[in-house]
Amino acid sequence: MPDNGSLRPGFAATQRSRVRRHPERAHYDRETVYAILDAAMMCHVGYVIDGLPYVTPTLFWRDGDRLYWHGSSASRMLRAQREGIPVCLTVSHVDGLVLARCAFRHSLNYRAVMAFGTAHAVEDESEKEAGLNAFIERLYPGRTALMRPIAAQELKATMLLGIAIEEVSAKIRDDGPLDLDIDHGADCWAGIVPIAQLVGMPIPDRRVSPRGSREREIGHLSEGARFDDLLRRLAR
Amino acid sequence: MPDNGSLRPGFAATQRSRVRRHPERAHYDRETVYAILDAAMMCHVGYVIDGLPYVTPTLFWRDGDRLYWHGSSASRMLRAQREGIPVCLTVSHVDGLVLARCAFRHSLNYRAVMAFGTAHAVEDESEKEAGLNAFIERLYPGRTALMRPIAAQELKATMLLGIAIEEVSAKIRDDGPLDLDIDHGADCWAGIVPIAQLVGMPIPDRRVSPRGSREREIGHLSEGARFDDLLRRLAR
Repeated sequence: MPDNGSLRPGFAATQRSRVRRHPERAHYDRETVYAILDAAMMCHVGYVIDGLPYVTPTLFWRDGDRLYWHGSSASRMLRAQREGIPVCLTVSHVDGLVLARCAFRHSLNYRAVMAFGTAHAVEDESEKEAGLNAFIERLYPGRTALMRPIAAQELKATMLLGIAIEEVSAKIRDDGPLDLDIDHGADCWAGIVPIAQLVGMPIPDRRVSPRGSREREIGHLSEGARFDDLLRRLAR
Repeated sequence: MPDNGSLRPGFAATQRSRVRRHPERAHYDRETVYAILDAAMMCHVGYVIDGLPYVTPTLFWRDGDRLYWHGSSASRMLRAQREGIPVCLTVSHVDGLVLARCAFRHSLNYRAVMAFGTAHAVEDESEKEAGLNAFIERLYPGRTALMRPIAAQELKATMLLGIAIEEVSAKIRDDGPLDLDIDHGADCWAGIVPIAQLVGMPIPDRRVSPRGSREREIGHLSEGARFDDLLRRLAR
């Protein structure tokens, strides 16, 4: 059975990770944290250079309590991070607009994780290659077998960064409007407008007609599917 | 005519904002930067506390070259930011998975903006109220007229933060796979799998049946609409 985190102890709520606002929306157990991370492909990595904050959107993937991202060896972000600096890797899903009966009670349904750790570069070439291939396989199972191996210069041009999660919190709002009684008579609509990321109809390469079989290779990326559900299933 | 930034000079590419990787994907003109910001509602704000990076997902809106976000007066993030600390506000849109014919050329179509500025709190009560109402109106035109005004204690409990954009860059990838000639014969499918955020079917408050008219009030949030297009239209 794949490890969904449900059988292991949760993370501790620390000075850095503890959710202050709406603590009832906070979660520190691995199952919840993993589920939010695994339903995503994009994260926002925060780091500090010369005392100033930077937030770079980038693709990531999870392996146990480790999170990985990659990019060009020439990237300023990655060159800074390889030195072992602290990062905050944040993932968020927008699930719905919450319309209440007064301005103050308007809200958003969302799932988010803030994970803290110390970035390190994976320098070992074979570990790096395995990591990059694992990312391809995470999105497109079976795909690496259809392509040539990663070339030495491609591997050299790519940096693989990761953190072991040191501290982490998840925060979820999944509810309707929470209006005051005195506002229930207000003459306006109230409820949730769901928002979701969906997969569209694949578009074949228009420069060179692709060979292979779309259905067999990426049939799992079916038009109209919820992308978060799909990513989470792929992570299992 | 609303100001879409097209008639004003672009931002300068600075040491902090200049895009190093794939500079051909970089944009510094207001029209492009505004279009990416206006198509979003969620941003990721990066800031530094005690030398450590934090990235908080939050809702935001734009007014000219100013970006605003809000939250509880008790929030650690907002209390730190009101002191006038540097922030990096990043917005990203995932537009599509790009499947190439070798691992290295796999990519993502996206639009992103990194905006740098010094956070400040809007302390003036009427300016704050106007800002919060402008945010409601940005998403739900006409809605503030249907609800009671924001109460004094609600205004006190809410902090409104903003930056004047000091430095900014946009980065866009919007293309198919860019394979090497030698890989064109690979026996795998190649192309783009579009990803988009769509609006779902509204769900009325199940605690108290809403009055008002969904169609008249939020008919613009129509099921199946692209949320980014909708937000951008609303910003005009």
